[in-house]
Amino acid sequence: MPVPASIQFVPGRLPITSAFQVATRNYADARLLSAITRMTKRLSGRTGITFTPVVKNDESQATLVIDCAGPGRTIPAVDEDETYQLDVSDRQARLTAPTVVGALRGLETFLQLISADRDGFFLPAVTIRDQPRFRWRGLLIDVARHYQPMEVLKRNLDAMAAVKLNVFHWHLSENQGFRIESRKFPKLHQMGSDGLYYTQEQAREIVAYAAERGIRVVPEFDMPGHSTAWLVGYPELASLPGPYEIERRAGIFDPTLDPTREEVYKFLDSFMGEMAALFPDAYLHIGGDENEGKQWDRNPQIQAFMKEKGLKDNHALQAYFNQRMLKILQKHKKKMIGWDEILQPDLPRDVVIQSWRGPTALAEAAKKGYDGILSNGYYIDLMYPASQHYLADPVPANSTLTPEEAKHILGGEATMWGEYVSPETIDSRIWPRTAAIAERLWSRRDVTDIDDMYRRLAAISIQLEELGLTHERNRQVLLRRLAQTKEIGPLEVLVSLVEPVKEYRRGQQRPSTMLSPLTGLVDAAHADSLAARQFANMVEALLSDAPHFRTEEVQRVLREWRDAGPQLNSILERAPALQEARPLVDDLSEMARIGLEATSYLTDRVAPTTQWRDASLARLDQAAKPKAALEFAMIPGLRLLVSAAAELPSLQQLSPADWKLRVKSLAKPPAK
Amino acid sequence: MPVPASIQFVPGRLPITSAFQVATRNYADARLLSAITRMTKRLSGRTGITFTPVVKNDESQATLVIDCAGPGRTIPAVDEDETYQLDVSDRQARLTAPTVVGALRGLETFLQLISADRDGFFLPAVTIRDQPRFRWRGLLIDVARHYQPMEVLKRNLDAMAAVKLNVFHWHLSENQGFRIESRKFPKLHQMGSDGLYYTQEQAREIVAYAAERGIRVVPEFDMPGHSTAWLVGYPELASLPGPYEIERRAGIFDPTLDPTREEVYKFLDSFMGEMAALFPDAYLHIGGDENEGKQWDRNPQIQAFMKEKGLKDNHALQAYFNQRMLKILQKHKKKMIGWDEILQPDLPRDVVIQSWRGPTALAEAAKKGYDGILSNGYYIDLMYPASQHYLADPVPANSTLTPEEAKHILGGEATMWGEYVSPETIDSRIWPRTAAIAERLWSRRDVTDIDDMYRRLAAISIQLEELGLTHERNRQVLLRRLAQTKEIGPLEVLVSLVEPVKEYRRGQQRPSTMLSPLTGLVDAAHADSLAARQFANMVEALLSDAPHFRTEEVQRVLREWRDAGPQLNSILERAPALQEARPLVDDLSEMARIGLEATSYLTDRVAPTTQWRDASLARLDQAAKPKAALEFAMIPGLRLLVSAAAELPSLQQLSPADWKLRVKSLAKPPAK
Repeated sequence: MPVPASIQFVPGRLPITSAFQVATRNYADARLLSAITRMTKRLSGRTGITFTPVVKNDESQATLVIDCAGPGRTIPAVDEDETYQLDVSDRQARLTAPTVVGALRGLETFLQLISADRDGFFLPAVTIRDQPRFRWRGLLIDVARHYQPMEVLKRNLDAMAAVKLNVFHWHLSENQGFRIESRKFPKLHQMGSDGLYYTQEQAREIVAYAAERGIRVVPEFDMPGHSTAWLVGYPELASLPGPYEIERRAGIFDPTLDPTREEVYKFLDSFMGEMAALFPDAYLHIGGDENEGKQWDRNPQIQAFMKEKGLKDNHALQAYFNQRMLKILQKHKKKMIGWDEILQPDLPRDVVIQSWRGPTALAEAAKKGYDGILSNGYYIDLMYPASQHYLADPVPANSTLTPEEAKHILGGEATMWGEYVSPETIDSRIWPRTAAIAERLWSRRDVTDIDDMYRRLAAISIQLEELGLTHERNRQVLLRRLAQTKEIGPLEVLVSLVEPVKEYRRGQQRPSTMLSPLTGLVDAAHADSLAARQFANMVEALLSDAPHFRTEEVQRVLREWRDAGPQLNSILERAPALQEARPLVDDLSEMARIGLEATSYLTDRVAPTTQWRDASLARLDQAAKPKAALEFAMIPGLRLLVSAAAELPSLQQLSPADWKLRVKSLAKPPAK
Repeated sequence: MPVPASIQFVPGRLPITSAFQVATRNYADARLLSAITRMTKRLSGRTGITFTPVVKNDESQATLVIDCAGPGRTIPAVDEDETYQLDVSDRQARLTAPTVVGALRGLETFLQLISADRDGFFLPAVTIRDQPRFRWRGLLIDVARHYQPMEVLKRNLDAMAAVKLNVFHWHLSENQGFRIESRKFPKLHQMGSDGLYYTQEQAREIVAYAAERGIRVVPEFDMPGHSTAWLVGYPELASLPGPYEIERRAGIFDPTLDPTREEVYKFLDSFMGEMAALFPDAYLHIGGDENEGKQWDRNPQIQAFMKEKGLKDNHALQAYFNQRMLKILQKHKKKMIGWDEILQPDLPRDVVIQSWRGPTALAEAAKKGYDGILSNGYYIDLMYPASQHYLADPVPANSTLTPEEAKHILGGEATMWGEYVSPETIDSRIWPRTAAIAERLWSRRDVTDIDDMYRRLAAISIQLEELGLTHERNRQVLLRRLAQTKEIGPLEVLVSLVEPVKEYRRGQQRPSTMLSPLTGLVDAAHADSLAARQFANMVEALLSDAPHFRTEEVQRVLREWRDAGPQLNSILERAPALQEARPLVDDLSEMARIGLEATSYLTDRVAPTTQWRDASLARLDQAAKPKAALEFAMIPGLRLLVSAAAELPSLQQLSPADWKLRVKSLAKPPAK
């Protein structure tokens, strides 16, 4: 994962033993050798085998030969050649690549191919020719709303490399925080960050760490809106007089840079010069989103300026600002990238548009000749399942773009917006779902089998843990803290069945600020309930096997839910921080009861009353309502079970073929 | 934990609500304010409540008033005053301390007092007067055999502060690695570390991080032995010609600094000067242990030197070396500390002895007037249970030291030697057991109730997780990687019942080097099996309730073991890295069978044959033999169960009182 462009398995296997050896041929440099060391260490950790960590030039004894033609770009670039070829035979694996970056991508594939059976570890014999579908495959991490320590960024860069993502979009400034040291304007980080910022040395460390893994770092300084944190130290940049304080709430706020004053551009020129020197990537992101211009409307000087310059509205004023910023970035040899909103008439064609609005807006930009990247559909903070992100395509099959126009679509980026992520929870919000997005951006458009994706995602998820990712391990930590006991089995049952509410409903249902703890049940819940998917599959298997009704497995699960109830209530007695879960516990018990009754009707072949069906479905509707910013994910499966139980009498007379048809028609849940 | 010197609960409770506020009085500085911020964040995380993070001067509205008289020592020192007093009433908590360090200790107590019931979070009303029993309460982390990244050290410093430890003993050099940047002798870290070392800036960062928490940092440079890694870059320092390579094995090795050449002292003078400037603590540790002098015996020049100087043996030569090192350290204004072996006649009294040999050796040194700290009994790498470390006392009740002499015993240090710890596993080797050692060094000598210690240790263990400690969470990560599946329930049953073999037997039973992965089942096992302790308690409860024989709970557990067997075998089929666990799985199944048979005999009141008893005990003996460097921890409980079942016929005729006596006599396991 991502699925290679071309993969052909052939008979045979290459065993991995303590004799494992790597040899390089043609080009090898420090970056490649470090990557080999890292790969060998992971291989060793996974297999439990001690390897000799020496890379040889002697190919004859090598298990893996890496034949690399050259270094690739020293500073990772959007036109990097990431191609590689991997040929595994009974005797040897051979990785061929034109650049070291291609070889890095191939090493990740090599590691993913490691298989095991009772005879030991091995690679299946295979021929892979691989290159990405899109050149720009990114992950945005918003470190501004909640600061993330260096090790969080590093382990996420490791994970990005593991799934062949190649752009780390570092969202460094916001209303809620300014996170990078500025030596020219130290009040930016000193007054805008609560002391939580990256030093320039740390920034360089991240850039180098990313480059080691063939990952670009694109910094974003969101402007002219989203800029409250700048104004705490430099209120003179604002469109209305200060003082300003670091924003603690989530939302869209008024403070905006003043686009009419030369001092502001002088400041930004100087600041961007400093940042341009710090970040070697060709692109620099200026944000540009969600400026409602309210401060502009209220400032007579700005109004006068607009009149004087013939700027008819705030959009025109922002376009003016963008033009000025473009010149500043050009002066500092950077290409400008911004969100949808920056796309205004007269914007030169070498600006890149990042679309949060959608593929249609992006296609329109492409038709006008702008390069673009898609983020709509990849907003992982919205808590949608991987399956949904997986099907969002930067250039969908029904795209009206010509092949020439389609080339302007550089790729896409998953966006980890930071309102509700702490160092403890952020990995579980990014992974493993982002691996599905990485596959969308690397693999062929027709790789769309959801079940297969989830099967492979489960394997990748475990492999990501060896890089230190905490997406799985930290759930129990949160639950133990909430319950103040190690006996959290029943809580695990509950939390495995719920998902955080989607979109931006969390803030409405469970108001909080950037200073609120992110240690609640909702923080322990994941976006993509495996238990709910498994339950749905069980119910489907049960019904598709009708009229046998082998309900044992479903009943075992339902009994587990039922038995969790009293235990959960006893945990809740002692855990004030879990009080919000009480209605969820009631729902779970009721759903277990309803499910068990439904299975009884099915196995006993006794029809329930209409009253039972209606009451049960009504209770499920009630359970489907979010509580504590959580919602149960297995309700569709339960609805199906209830409907099936209610249909039982008519079903008894059916032929097996009609049975299947009938079950199929049931699968559509009743309209609410 | 540690139990305060004096604690008195009174009626009443102080609720913790969103109105929680801290005020300071008298002295407050950046260190205190940072500590308050960290405390408030943990309180918020644990309670789920959003607090206003502002510290006020207005006492009237404050929930917690911190009344601090002064800063304490800027550089944490061994004579720091760590006293504090904490008074909690219905209305307010008041923390009084002569120094900020005392206040830091009190803040940890404050956090530990947080309680919860259905009415919410609160502190019980209480009066605590507290100060440590010993001034030197340390944790040694050996980062030389296996390098540990910065975040590992930082989170362990956080954990140390949480249990009031105050010395981080940083074991920085070894045969297997030299881990600190030397600008004067860069080949030390460049050639002796595989690139895994701390820069001087990082060292300063650790020193500052520790000082923020009132923790001293004592660096150790082990010499003249344990020095192979020095010699890779500077073979001219050795007692025999090189070249040298970084040692990859565990053990005691010959390479030794040459104590007879002036160039060596010139080098060490210069190096120690550099390190003395880097580490502000008054003490510097020169190791001095385990030098067998083999290189000295084989070097004629050294032999000639000894003859010339009248040094009759290698001990005398090492004493000469120590005298020279002492002068060098004195020149750089450092007090010398070393292991037992450095204690030689003529050593001045201001040298500190760290004893790995035991309290008797330590007491002898104290009688001679040397300060000393105890590490014997606190070797946490030996994998003994917390209960054992807990009872090791630097000045035991039967000590023959006069009060004046006893003052020379400064305290003790837990030692995390690094042969078998990776960043992934080290926390689980240190915690929670080290909290029991911390209590031994802080609390009164008569605080020795093991059950009560374990009860409190379980609570502390969960609280340590909020600081990022991974001692619990990483077990499942290791198991998932071994099994390559998320379905690790049966593996968890198995691993919860085994402990790594004690002492240094792991290396014998499962040979490995410093390059071997630390990802095996033995790395997932913990030193102190909770499940085994619980099982022993269950069996005890079952028998003490005789002749009722309520076996349900024991049987439930035994069935869990039994059911895990087939599932484990199916996991093993696909997991080559778990093949070594096969005999353990067989043992577990057999033990479940024997246990279930024993409970049947008890409940059925049918006596088994002597043959059954003998065969069962023989099978348990077989299961008790270590496999895969692991041993089952619940075998004593099973032996007791088998013996009880075998005794059944005679028991039936007993009175309840005789019953108890009989059961008591059974509790002694048969001699092996």
